[in-house]
Amino acid sequence: MTRSVETIFGLHAVRALLLRHPERVLTLKLAAGRDDARVRELTELAKRHGCPIERADAGAFKQLLGDAVHQGVVAEISSMPPWTEDDLLTALTHAKLPLVLALDGVQDPHNLGACLRTADACGALAVVVPKDRAAQLTAAVRKVAAGAAETTPVVAVTNLVRCLSLMKEAGLWVVGAEARADERPQDVDLTTGTVLVLGAEGAGLRQLTRQACDFVVRLPQVGAVESLNVSVAAGMLLYEALRQREGAQK
Amino acid sequence: MTRSVETIFGLHAVRALLLRHPERVLTLKLAAGRDDARVRELTELAKRHGCPIERADAGAFKQLLGDAVHQGVVAEISSMPPWTEDDLLTALTHAKLPLVLALDGVQDPHNLGACLRTADACGALAVVVPKDRAAQLTAAVRKVAAGAAETTPVVAVTNLVRCLSLMKEAGLWVVGAEARADERPQDVDLTTGTVLVLGAEGAGLRQLTRQACDFVVRLPQVGAVESLNVSVAAGMLLYEALRQREGAQK
Repeated sequence: MTRSVETIFGLHAVRALLLRHPERVLTLKLAAGRDDARVRELTELAKRHGCPIERADAGAFKQLLGDAVHQGVVAEISSMPPWTEDDLLTALTHAKLPLVLALDGVQDPHNLGACLRTADACGALAVVVPKDRAAQLTAAVRKVAAGAAETTPVVAVTNLVRCLSLMKEAGLWVVGAEARADERPQDVDLTTGTVLVLGAEGAGLRQLTRQACDFVVRLPQVGAVESLNVSVAAGMLLYEALRQREGAQK
Repeated sequence: MTRSVETIFGLHAVRALLLRHPERVLTLKLAAGRDDARVRELTELAKRHGCPIERADAGAFKQLLGDAVHQGVVAEISSMPPWTEDDLLTALTHAKLPLVLALDGVQDPHNLGACLRTADACGALAVVVPKDRAAQLTAAVRKVAAGAAETTPVVAVTNLVRCLSLMKEAGLWVVGAEARADERPQDVDLTTGTVLVLGAEGAGLRQLTRQACDFVVRLPQVGAVESLNVSVAAGMLLYEALRQREGAQK
């Protein structure tokens, strides 16, 4: 049996993992001399979960991370295991108003990493991608995702349309984005459980994917550029969903 | 005197330039055999402005553009000349409810290109960057911007804070984004002339820049990742401005 180890760094990323998945933190490494309220909180969290704490000097951090902005806080963690479709469906039954991002054939690893980072920042439950003809969760993708791959799972599915149907059966609405759609994101209710579906760079949604959508909405496209970068489009849709949800809580 | 020539491609990008800046189109190149309504519209536009039209075979396009999705439509154009601060201020006096994107020290050329593409898609008047310690409009940036650099001007200014003041005097509101701000974008009126200001990767707004803002708003940050990619953050803010403006037109 093998175990895959990842290194994450920075106060925010390490704190997020200690709070959400303390069982996955193998070692917490702190810069010698760092001792303030935020670092003490991390130390408390690590101790509570029996996670070993090491002190290291600046040279060791430099060797490990180069010029990355680590804030003197690093953790070695066991990688997030990839989710199966069943894991996703199980998680959906427990999640409150889940928000899922589905990418229909995004091929550029940089774009997948950027989408993962955006999905994570917006609290999406998972990012769903097809197993074939699409970027998968590689080391390059993890790097672009800047830690997001360790908290937001990627689910590679054999048949995206079937997965969308299963999520519909689980009570989610499926909302796709397309340049020429009639409705705007703000016209559609995104405050219930929602899957947001984005097409590949340039090509947009495939026909069968489009047909699987309950709604299709358009995003800004007034300029010379044919379509938004997929991670920017994902950011706009996720922003709109969060905006509507914040409004609904009032 | 030198003239810089750029190649743009794709129906959408070429049409946008023929409509907005026909004087800058030096040659329109169409794939041999392409003759449909959309191409005929381009031909009409080119003829009206006395722009030469060439037919070229698939091999010539391949040689020129590799595997890019050109749709059999290419134009050689004179580059958009960079705008000075004075050009920007003059344009502001003519623009109706201008939307300007200002980037406070974004250093990664990829991020500047992505911001330019997003600004263009959302109809921003210009993108303002400091001349020092920030990415400038290079060939690499133009490539990432995918044509947007030919329609949305970049304005490199000596002093960003001074430029923000000048835009304020011109009647614009200055709205910055920061992870820990109290207000949300939807709480601030973005329907008047607005400058949206985003900080550098990781570092955020510099103190003097922050002080120059009329409002500071926060963007989603619920995940493990410290901050959104700057082009995604720009997309969210521009989306919100357009959403408010569409709503205001009702």
